[in-house]
Amino acid sequence: MAQDDSIITAALLVIGDEILSGRTKDKNIGTIAEHLTAIGIRLREVRVVADVEDEIVAAVNELRARSTYLFTTGGIGPTHDDITADAIAKAFGVSIDVDPRALALLQPHYEKRGMTLTPPRLRMARIPDGAELIANSVSIAPGFMIGNVIVMAGVPLVMQAMLTAVTARLKTGRKMHSMSLGVDRPEGDIAETFSAHQAAFPNVSMGSYPSFGDGRFRTELVLRSTDEIELQTAFEQLKLKLSQL
Amino acid sequence: MAQDDSIITAALLVIGDEILSGRTKDKNIGTIAEHLTAIGIRLREVRVVADVEDEIVAAVNELRARSTYLFTTGGIGPTHDDITADAIAKAFGVSIDVDPRALALLQPHYEKRGMTLTPPRLRMARIPDGAELIANSVSIAPGFMIGNVIVMAGVPLVMQAMLTAVTARLKTGRKMHSMSLGVDRPEGDIAETFSAHQAAFPNVSMGSYPSFGDGRFRTELVLRSTDEIELQTAFEQLKLKLSQL
Repeated sequence: MAQDDSIITAALLVIGDEILSGRTKDKNIGTIAEHLTAIGIRLREVRVVADVEDEIVAAVNELRARSTYLFTTGGIGPTHDDITADAIAKAFGVSIDVDPRALALLQPHYEKRGMTLTPPRLRMARIPDGAELIANSVSIAPGFMIGNVIVMAGVPLVMQAMLTAVTARLKTGRKMHSMSLGVDRPEGDIAETFSAHQAAFPNVSMGSYPSFGDGRFRTELVLRSTDEIELQTAFEQLKLKLSQL
Repeated sequence: MAQDDSIITAALLVIGDEILSGRTKDKNIGTIAEHLTAIGIRLREVRVVADVEDEIVAAVNELRARSTYLFTTGGIGPTHDDITADAIAKAFGVSIDVDPRALALLQPHYEKRGMTLTPPRLRMARIPDGAELIANSVSIAPGFMIGNVIVMAGVPLVMQAMLTAVTARLKTGRKMHSMSLGVDRPEGDIAETFSAHQAAFPNVSMGSYPSFGDGRFRTELVLRSTDEIELQTAFEQLKLKLSQL
């Protein structure tokens, strides 16, 4: 994981009818967002699209041009609704076929378990030309990286294994640090102070997140910056200002 | 909620740095997806963007042109990072100011609680010109609907109250029905049968969702169609075919 000082950005494309119908509640967006923040990559946008080739191709080509990396989840299994690998090949204008490296992973895996390498399972060895495989320590069938696009499974455990596996290959930038301060007051009570504080520290990004519970208001103030010293200063001054309200 | 036979579609725009940083795990996408499916509106795409006005405006204008409705969540609170209402006004090219209807809701609410209607709280009464309010039974500050765009809060409880409140005003189409069949086999074992079955029923959309747990494979097959009779037929025939494997 090479460190450098420029800003490294990412987009995420979640592929799957099941998320849009509400049948499956996505858990990958939060996991990926947290992981990328931790390693110094800024997630700038997320999209969820259906299992429709044209929509996947259009989103892939739009998003990969705009960020350092594009991550995708979903649609790389053995069934007919798994069309991501073909859509990625189409987006890059490259061919796709059974990849000997992927086959070499799948064949012994199934043999050992007395399972047949059916044509659908063979589909999971189809990898666009020019892609590098991403290891899957959970269920073997690999993800892949082509250009700046990282293609991962949708099943959360498998996605996490692939995200871990690919991390060492990613360029990362300056880490965004954050500090947060919980206040037992409604947002409206502290918003003026907070807004003035944001104006005083334009390089620290400040957000306010209210919640309600047990009949009480609570507000969490989150400060974020790549500069730890400035962040610390802004945090301490905010605490002081709020204590004087 | 007027029923008609055409297809009614929706897009969802989730607005907020906190989702992209991973600090907050979104819960609204799943809730909204499930609700729209239940009332006969098809969610076609979801986007998550940061608290950046230009990005919100661009996404709003792109998405509202493509679907019957666009729902947004987040960014309508009292603090400086709440910029959704202004971005929506900009997207529609209309003015925005304190709305007497919204003020009439907020004023007695805060008075009754001995809270001051601070300038930040007054911000929550800023509504784009031409919008209709959406009631908020949780914390009063309203959402709004302008054209085909429905603007809701990000706090899940408040979002749910607004979604419930706006539902009666929405045009809905034919409901997508679904039936699902759990199979204690890995996807690869049944994929050929399933794929042939999809080909035999092109009007029924079929998806396969694998999971792993306790060292066992499980696959859930989900069939969806607006035609309940065709759905039932496809479901029964699939059960029969799988029992013969």
